[in-house]
Parts: sequence; C-alpha cells; structure tokens
Amino acid sequence: MDSMTIIAIVSIFTAGITTGFGCLGPALGEGRAVSTALSSLAQQPDAAPTITRTLFVGLAMVESTAIYCFVVSMILIFANPFWNHFIAQAAGK
Amino acid sequence: MDSMTIIAIVSIFTAGITTGFGCLGPALGEGRAVSTALSSLAQQPDAAPTITRTLFVGLAMVESTAIYCFVVSMILIFANPFWNHFIAQAAGK
Amino acid sequence: MDSMTIIAIVSIFTAGITTGFGCLGPALGEGRAVSTALSSLAQQPDAAPTITRTLFVGLAMVESTAIYCFVVSMILIFANPFWNHFIAQAAGK
Amino acid sequence: MDSMTIIAIVSIFTAGITTGFGCLGPALGEGRAVSTALSSLAQQPDAAPTITRTLFVGLAMVESTAIYCFVVSMILIFANPFWNHFIAQAAGK
Amino acid sequence: MDSMTIIAIVSIFTAGITTGFGCLGPALGEGRAVSTALSSLAQQPDAAPTITRTLFVGLAMVESTAIYCFVVSMILIFANPFWNHFIAQAAGK
Amino acid sequence: MDSMTIIAIVSIFTAGITTGFGCLGPALGEGRAVSTALSSLAQQPDAAPTITRTLFVGLAMVESTAIYCFVVSMILIFANPFWNHFIAQAAGK
Amino acid sequence: MDSMTIIAIVSIFTAGITTGFGCLGPALGEGRAVSTALSSLAQQPDAAPTITRTLFVGLAMVESTAIYCFVVSMILIFANPFWNHFIAQAAGK
Amino acid sequence: MDSMTIIAIVSIFTAGITTGFGCLGPALGEGRAVSTALSSLAQQPDAAPTITRTLFVGLAMVESTAIYCFVVSMILIFANPFWNHFIAQAAGK
Amino acid sequence: MDSMTIIAIVSIFTAGITTGFGCLGPALGEGRAVSTALSSLAQQPDAAPTITRTLFVGLAMVESTAIYCFVVSMILIFANPFWNHFIAQAAGK
Amino acid sequence: MDSMTIIAIVSIFTAGITTGFGCLGPALGEGRAVSTALSSLAQQPDAAPTITRTLFVGLAMVESTAIYCFVVSMILIFANPFWNHFIAQAAGK
Amino acid sequence: MDSMTIIAIVSIFTAGITTGFGCLGPALGEGRAVSTALSSLAQQPDAAPTITRTLFVGLAMVESTAIYCFVVSMILIFANPFWNHFIAQAAGK
Amino acid sequence: MDSMTIIAIVSIFTAGITTGFGCLGPALGEGRAVSTALSSLAQQPDAAPTITRTLFVGLAMVESTAIYCFVVSMILIFANPFWNHFIAQAAGK
Amino acid sequence: MDSMTIIAIVSIFTAGITTGFGCLGPALGEGRAVSTALSSLAQQPDAAPTITRTLFVGLAMVESTAIYCFVVSMILIFANPFWNHFIAQAAGK
Amino acid sequence: MDSMTIIAIVSIFTAGITTGFGCLGPALGEGRAVSTALSSLAQQPDAAPTITRTLFVGLAMVESTAIYCFVVSMILIFANPFWNHFIAQAAGK
Repeated sequence: MDSMTIIAIVSIFTAGITTGFGCLGPALGEGRAVSTALSSLAQQPDAAPTITRTLFVGLAMVESTAIYCFVVSMILIFANPFWNHFIAQAAGK
Repeated sequence: MDSMTIIAIVSIFTAGITTGFGCLGPALGEGRAVSTALSSLAQQPDAAPTITRTLFVGLAMVESTAIYCFVVSMILIFANPFWNHFIAQAAGK
Repeated sequence: MDSMTIIAIVSIFTAGITTGFGCLGPALGEGRAVSTALSSLAQQPDAAPTITRTLFVGLAMVESTAIYCFVVSMILIFANPFWNHFIAQAAGK
Repeated sequence: MDSMTIIAIVSIFTAGITTGFGCLGPALGEGRAVSTALSSLAQQPDAAPTITRTLFVGLAMVESTAIYCFVVSMILIFANPFWNHFIAQAAGK
Repeated sequence: MDSMTIIAIVSIFTAGITTGFGCLGPALGEGRAVSTALSSLAQQPDAAPTITRTLFVGLAMVESTAIYCFVVSMILIFANPFWNHFIAQAAGK
Repeated sequence: MDSMTIIAIVSIFTAGITTGFGCLGPALGEGRAVSTALSSLAQQPDAAPTITRTLFVGLAMVESTAIYCFVVSMILIFANPFWNHFIAQAAGK
Repeated sequence: MDSMTIIAIVSIFTAGITTGFGCLGPALGEGRAVSTALSSLAQQPDAAPTITRTLFVGLAMVESTAIYCFVVSMILIFANPFWNHFIAQAAGK
Repeated sequence: MDSMTIIAIVSIFTAGITTGFGCLGPALGEGRAVSTALSSLAQQPDAAPTITRTLFVGLAMVESTAIYCFVVSMILIFANPFWNHFIAQAAGK
Repeated sequence: MDSMTIIAIVSIFTAGITTGFGCLGPALGEGRAVSTALSSLAQQPDAAPTITRTLFVGLAMVESTAIYCFVVSMILIFANPFWNHFIAQAAGK
Repeated sequence: MDSMTIIAIVSIFTAGITTGFGCLGPALGEGRAVSTALSSLAQQPDAAPTITRTLFVGLAMVESTAIYCFVVSMILIFANPFWNHFIAQAAGK
Repeated sequence: MDSMTIIAIVSIFTAGITTGFGCLGPALGEGRAVSTALSSLAQQPDAAPTITRTLFVGLAMVESTAIYCFVVSMILIFANPFWNHFIAQAAGK
Repeated sequence: MDSMTIIAIVSIFTAGITTGFGCLGPALGEGRAVSTALSSLAQQPDAAPTITRTLFVGLAMVESTAIYCFVVSMILIFANPFWNHFIAQAAGK
Repeated sequence: MDSMTIIAIVSIFTAGITTGFGCLGPALGEGRAVSTALSSLAQQPDAAPTITRTLFVGLAMVESTAIYCFVVSMILIFANPFWNHFIAQAAGK
Repeated sequence: MDSMTIIAIVSIFTAGITTGFGCLGPALGEGRAVSTALSSLAQQPDAAPTITRTLFVGLAMVESTAIYCFVVSMILIFANPFWNHFIAQAAGK
C-alpha cells in the first residue's frame, strides 16, 4: 500500500465515522428540546411566540455541533490538505 | 490487494456504518418529539395548530442530522473523489 | 483472496450490519410514539382524529430513517457500483 | 480457504447477526406499545376499539423493521447474488 | 482447516449466538407486557376479557421476533444451503 | 488441530454461551412479571384467580425464550448434525 | 497442544463463564421479586398466604433459568460427550 | 507450555472470574431485597415476623445463585476432573 | 510507510474523532439547558428576560467545550506543528 | 517463560481482578441497604431495634459474597494447589 | 519508524483524545447546572442575583476541569518536553 | 524478558487496577449512604444519634470492601509470595 | 525503538488519558452539586450564606480528585523519575 | 527492551490509570453527598450543625478511597519496590 492509498482510506473512514457518530448527540439533544417545547406550548399556549423563538435559537445552537462534524467530514473528503500535499508531490515527481 | 480494492472496501464499509449508526440518534430523537406532541395534543387539543407546526419544524431539524449521514454515505458510494482519482489514474496509466 | 471475493465479503457483512443495527433506533422510537399515542387516546378520546393523524405522520418520519438503512443495504447487495466496476473489469479483461 | 468458502462463512455469520441483533429493538418497542395499550384499556375501557386499532397499526409499523432484518437474512441465505455469481463462475469454469 | 470444517464451525457459532442474543429483547418485552397486564387487571378487573385478549395478541407479536431468531438458528443447523452445497460437492467429487 | 477437535471446541463454547447469555433476558422479564403480580395481589386481593392465571400464562411465554436457548444448547451438545457428520466420515474412512 | 488439552481448556472456561454470567439475571430477577413481595406484605398483610405462594412459584420459575446454566456447567465438567469421545478414542488407540 | 500448565492457568483464571463476576448479581439483588425489607418494616412494624421470614427465604434463594458460582470455582480449583485426568496420565506414564 | 504518511494518517483520524466524539457532550448539555429554559418560560412567562439572558450565557459556556474540540481538530488539520516540522525537514533535506 | 512463571502471573492477575471486580456488587448493595435503613429510621424511629437487627443480618448476607471473592483471592495467592503441585514437582525433580 | 515520528504520532493522538473525551463531563455538568439555574429562576425570580452569582462561580469551577484537559492538549502539541528533547538531540547530533 | 521481570510487571499492573477499579463501588455506595443520612437528619433531627451510629457502622461495612482491595494491592506490592519465591530462587542459584 | 522513546510515548499517552478520563467524574459531581445548590437557593433564599459556604467546601473536596489526576499528569510530563533516570544514564554513558 | 524499561513503562501507565479511573467513583459519590447536604440545609436550616458535621465525616470517608488510589500511584512512581530491586541489581552488577 502506497502513501496515497492509505491517506484515502483513513480520510474516507474518518469522514464517515465523524458524521455518523457526531450526529448522535445533536439528534438526541434536539429531540429533547423540541419535546419540551411541545409540552410547554400545551401548558402555556399564550407564551407561544417566546417559546418558539427561544426554541429556534436553541436548536440552532445545538445544530451547530452537528455542523462542526459535517464540516470536518467535508474538509476531509473535498479539501484535505494532507491529500493535496501528496497529490502535489506525486505530480511534481 | 491493490489500491482500488482497498478503497472500495473501506468506502462500502464506511457508507454502511455511517447510515446504520447515524440513524440511531435521529430515530430516538424523533420518537421522543412525536411522543410528546401526542401527549400535548391530548392535554390541550385547542393548541393543535401551534403544536403540529412546531413539531414539523422540529422533526425537520432532527431529520437533518440523519440526512447528513445519508448524504455522506451516498457521496462515499456514488461520488467518492478518492475512488475517482484512482479510476482516473488507472485509466491514464 | 482476489479483489472480487473481498468486495463481496465486505458488501455482505456491511449490508447485514447496516440493517441489523439501523433498525434498533427506529423500532424503539416508533414503540415510544405508539405507546404515547395509546395513552393519549385513553386520556382524551375526543381528540382521536388529530392524534391518529399526527401519529401516522410521525411514524412515517421515524420509519424514514429505517428505510435509509434498508436502502443502503439493498444498494450494497443489488446495485453496488464497486462490485459492478470489478465485474466489468473482469469481463473486459 | 477459497472464495466460495469465505462467501459462505460471511453470509452465514451476517445472516445470524442481522436477525439476532435486529430483533432486539422491535421486541422492546412492541413490548412497550402492548404494555401501554393494556394500561390504557384499564384506564378507559370505552375507547377499546380505537386503542386496539391504533395498537395493531403501530405494531405492524414496528414489526416492519424486524421484517427488514429477517428479509435481509433470508436474502443472504437463499438469494445471495454474490454467492450465485461465484457458483455460476465455478460452473462455467 | 478445510472448507467443510469452517462452514460447520461458523454455523454452530452463529446458530447459538443468534438464539442466545435474540431472546434478550423478546423476553424483556414480554416481561414488560405481562407485567402491565397484571397491574391493569388489578386496577380494572371488569376489563379482564379485553385485556387478556389484547395481551395474547401482543405476546404473539413479540414472540414472533424470538421465533425469527429460532428459525434462523434451525435453518443454520438443519437446512443450511451452504453446507448442503459443500456436502454435494464433496459427494460428487 | 484436526476438524473434530475444532467442531467440539466451538460446540462446547457456543452451548455454554447460548444458555449463559440467553437466560439473562428471561430471568429479568420473569422477575418483573412476578414482581408486578405480587403488588397487584396486594392492591386487589379479590382478583387473585385472574391475576394468577394470567401470570402463569405469561411466565410460560417468557420461559419459552429461555427454553429455546436451552434447546439449542442441548442440540449442540447431544445432537449436533455437524459433529455426527464428521464422526460418520471418520468411521467410514 | 493436543486435542484433549484444548477440549479440557474450553470446557473449564465455558463451564465457569456460563455459571458466572448466567447467575446475573436470576439474582437480579429474584431480588426484584422478593423486594416487591416484602413491600406488598407491608401494604396488605392480610393477603400474606396468596402473596407468599405466588412468590415461591415465581422464584422457582426464575431459579429454573439459573439451574439451566448450572446444569450446562455440570454437563460440561462431568458428562461432556466430546471429552468422552476423545477419551474413548485415546483409550482405543 | 505443556498441557498441565495450560489446564492450571485456565482453571485459576476461570475460578477467579466465575466468583468475581458471579457475585455481582446476588450482591445487588440481596441489597435490593434487604433495602425493601427495611422500608417495609418502617412502614408496617406489626408485620415484622412475616416480613423477616419471607426476607430470609428470599435471601437464601438469591444466595443460592452466588453459591452455584462459588461451588463451580471450588470444583475447578480442588476437584477438577480434567486436571485429575492429566495428573493420572502423567503419573502412569 | 514513511514518517510523513503516518503523521498525516494520525492527524486525519484524530481530527475526526476529536470533533465527532467531543460534540456528544455539548449537544446533550445544550439540549438539556434549552429544554429546561422552555419549560421555565411556560411556567413563569414574566421572567422571560432573565431566563433568556442566563440561557445564552450558559449555552456560550457549554458551547465553549465544543469549540475546544473543534479548535484542536483545526490545529491538527491546518496548523499541525509536527507536520510542519517534517515538511521543513523534507524541504531542507 | 517456564510453567512456574506463567502460573504465578495468572494467579497474581486473577487474585487482583477477583477482589477488585467482586467488590463492586457488595459495595453497591450494602450502600443501598444502609441508605434505606437510615431513611427508615428517620421515618419510624420507634422500630429502630427491628430495623437495626434486620440491617445487620442483611449486611452480613451481602458481605458474604464479598468474602467469597476475597477467599478465592487468598486461596490463589497463599494456598494455590496448582502452584504447590509445580513447586513439589520442581523440588522432586 | 524513527523515534521522532512515534513521539509525534502519540502526541497528536493523545492531544485529540484528551480534549475530545475530557469535554464530555464538563459539558454534561454545565448543562445540568444551567438547566437547574433556569428552573430555579422560574420558581423564585426574586433570588435572581444570588442564583446567577452562584451559577457563574459553579460554572467556572466545572469549566476548570475542561481547561485542565485543554491545557494538557496544548502542552502536548506546542510545549512537549519529550519532543523538545529529541529535537535538541537530533540538532546536536 | 526473564521470569522476575514478568512477575514484577504483572504485580504492578494488577495492584494498580485492583485498587483503581475496586474503589468505584465503595465510593458510590458510601456516597449514597451519606447522602441518605443527610436527608434523614433533615427530616427527623431528633433521631440524630441513632442515624449517626447506624451510618458509621454501615460506612465501616462498605469501607471494608475497599480495604479488601487495598490489602490485596499491598500484598501484591510488598508481600508477594510469588516474587519472594523467585527472589529466593535467584539468590540460591 | 530504544528505551527513551518508549518511556516518552507511554508518559505522553498516560498523561493525556489520566487527565482526560479523570475529569469526567469531578465534572459530573460538581455539576450535580452546583445544580442542587441553585434549586436549594430558590427554595430557601434565607439560608443562602450556609448553602453557599457548604457548596464551596464541597466543590473544593470534589475538585481535589480532579487535581490528583492533573498532578499525576504534570508529574509524568515534567518530573518523571523514570525519564530522569534514563536521561542520567544516557548522559553518564 | 530490557527489564528496566518495561518496569518503568508499566509503572507509568498503571500509576496514571489508577488515579484517573479511581477518581471517578469518589467524585461522583462526593458530588451526591454534597448535593443532598445542600437540599437538606434548604429543607431544615436549623439542623445545619449536625448536617455539616455528618457531611464532613462522610466526605472524609469517601475521600479515603480516592486517597488509596493516589497513594498506590505515588508508591508506583516514587517508591516502587520492583524498580528499586532492578536498580540495585543493575548497580551491583
């Protein structure tokens, strides 16, 4: 196995694992937040605007951690500096 | 094992694991959200439009993390840049 | 072991694991949603149409994550691009 | 170990694991749904028809994930395209 | 180790694991369903016929997942197509 | 290690694991069912016949999954078709 | 390592693990049943005969799964058919 | 490593693990039973004789699973039939 | 495998794992904080400004741990001192 | 590594693990029993003699499982029959 | 692999793991603290100054453990004494 | 690696693990007991002498399991019979 | 790999793991303590001085365990006696 | 790797793990005890002296298990009898 193959393998595997595992937390966290929002709406329908607004800000915050994982995966697949280095090295050889 | 075989193996395995594991969180999170929506509807039937609307926005948010995983799987199977690189290399050789 | 054997092994194993593991989350999530639907019906029989409708939309949403897994398994077994590539390569050799 | 032996081993092992592990979720989910149905019946005997109908729809939905696993197992044992390919190859050799 | 020995080993091991692990879920699920049935009977003795009938339908549903596992085990031990293939191959050789 | 030794080893190990692990679920499930039966009896002594009858049916149902595991263990120890095949083969050689 | 040594090793190890692990479930299940029996007795002292009788039947049922494990261990240590086969084979050689 | 050394190693290791792990369940189960007994005594001091008697029967039942594990350990250390076989074999050689 | 390849592999893998695993905690923690904020708003709508302000400060605090992980990942991918050392060494050689 | 060294290694390791792991259960079980005893005393100070007596009997019962583990460890360190056998064998050689 | 490469690998991996894993606890702990602060504010709005002050002191305390992990990671990446030793050794050679 | 080195390694490792792991249970158990003692004191300040006395007896009982682990560790480090045997053997050689 | 490299590797890895893992407990424990302090303040604002003082003493106690871990990490990185021994040995050679 | 290197490696690793893992239990246990102390103070401010005194005794008890772990780590790093033995042996050689 030459260097480029190994870099490719590890990048593919890590990209998948990072997104696959990193979505566990946000999905559970958002599920919990949405769940409480709904029971709060049922309990206090008059506070709907405040609850909805806070919910969306909170969901965006939680979603940000999922996006960190997705961004790392995308960097590893499409803008991997280590891969680019070896491509450049192979081209210049 | 030559390079292309290994890239193929890792892509197949990672694609399956990413979707298989990445769906655990969203499924649990959505189950929780739907579950609370139903008990909220039973508790406050008058707030049904608000609850339903918030539920759908929330489910879409949670579903987005499952879609990240599915997208990464599809990229690894059908638009894998590393695989394309080696295909191009093999063709040009 | 030649390339085709390895691709076949990994595809079989990944297809099984993806469906086998990926059904854990949806089954638990749907069980929870159905469970709450039933206790909500018992608590507020008058809201049955709304509850039932919301339940079915939610179940479809949760089921979608199980279907993602099943689709990935079917792609890996019956429409695997990597396997097709090696078949084509072997045929053209 | 020749190719056919390995394909057979992996198919057997994956078929068992897929069904064995994939039944964990549905069994727990259905147990929960049935359990709530019973306590709902005890609480509101008048709503028995609605509860029973919703329960059966829900159980069918949860059972579907168990059936996905069973179907994948049966495909791997009795209609495995990779095995068929190698059988055909061996026969044609 | 020749092919037949390996097939036999994997079949034995997988058959045991599939039943051993696959019974965990149904046993817990049924225990939960029976448990709620008993407390429902104590709470609402008049609804005994409905509760008992729903319980038996539900138990049958949960038991079905245990039976899937048992069936796969029995297929692997007594009607294993891969084993039969190698037996036929060895006999015809 | 010749074939018969390996078959024996795997059979012994699998038989033990199947029973050892497979009894976890039923024991917990039955413990839960018995436990609820006792608190139901304390709560509603008049319903003792119905509760006791339902308990025994339910225990039999849960016990059945433990018996599946025990049966697979006994088959693997005393009626193992793979072992018999190799015994016959060794005798006929 | 000759065959008899390996059979002995695996039998010893499996016998210990089967009993050691298989007692986890029954111990927890019985602890739960006894625990509920005691709180039921405190709540409804008049129902003591019924509670005690049901408790003993239930404990016997749960204990049976522990006994399955113990029986498998004893079979593997003192009546192991595979060991006997090799002893007979060694004696007859 | 000759046979006797391996048998000794496995016996020592298994004896320790069986007792070490097998005491987890009974200790937790007994702790739970004792714990409920104490709160029942505080709640209903008049039922002390019945509670105490049932507690001791139950503790004996749970302790029995711990004793199974201890017995297996002692058999493996002091009355191991496999070890005796090899000792006899070595002496007779 | 030369030094640069190994450094690249470990950097890619660690960057992915750090972000993927490190987002689990913050996502759950933020989900919990948002969830309580919503139920607090429903319970005491008048305290909305104080609750919202405290929530945002708290979320920023929790988010900081996710950012630590993201920063470490970015350092490992784009500003890795070990990688730079070997690049410089290779250039100067 | 000669036989005596291996026996010594395994004995040391097993002795430590058996006590280290085997104390987990009793410590948690006793903690629970003591904990309930204290809240029972606070709830019903008049029943102090009965509660204290039952607590001590129960603690002794739970402690017995910890003592089983400790005894096995001490046997393995100071009265190990396998070690003695090899010592005797080495001395007599 | 020479010494410097190995030191670099282990430093990269450990730095990532330390931050990635070490942020799990603080994130959950802070999430819990913030969560209780919000429900306390909703319950007792008058005590807002005391609650907020105590919350910030507590968060700083919890954050300190996350900072320990981050500091260790930074030391391992940018001020690693072992790496410096080998750099100095390589330079002086 | 000669025998003494291996004995030393295993003794060091086991001593650390035994104390490190064996303190988990007692710490949690004592934390629980102290915790309940405090809430009991708050609930029934008049029973303080009885509660405190029972607490100390109970803590001593739980602490004893931690001391078993510590004793085993100290024996393995400072009074290890296997180490002494090899030291004596080396000295007498 | 010479001795110094290995000592360095193990020191780096252990230092990271000790801090990374050892902060899990204190962070959760402090989060719990702070959390209860806040709800206690909301429930009994008059007892703020006592609660705050006890909280700080308790936090210091819990923090001490995190500091033990940090101290061990720092000793392993900056004052490692084993590393110093080998440095001295290498210098004196 | 000579003996001294290995002893050093194992001592470093074990010292770190013992403290890192051994602090998990005490931190959680102390967190729980402090937490209950605070809610008890809020519930019964008059009993503050008794509660505080009992809390400190209990914390000292729990802390003792953390100190056992720390002591074992320090012994392994600074007063390791096995290391001293080999140092003496190397010096006397």
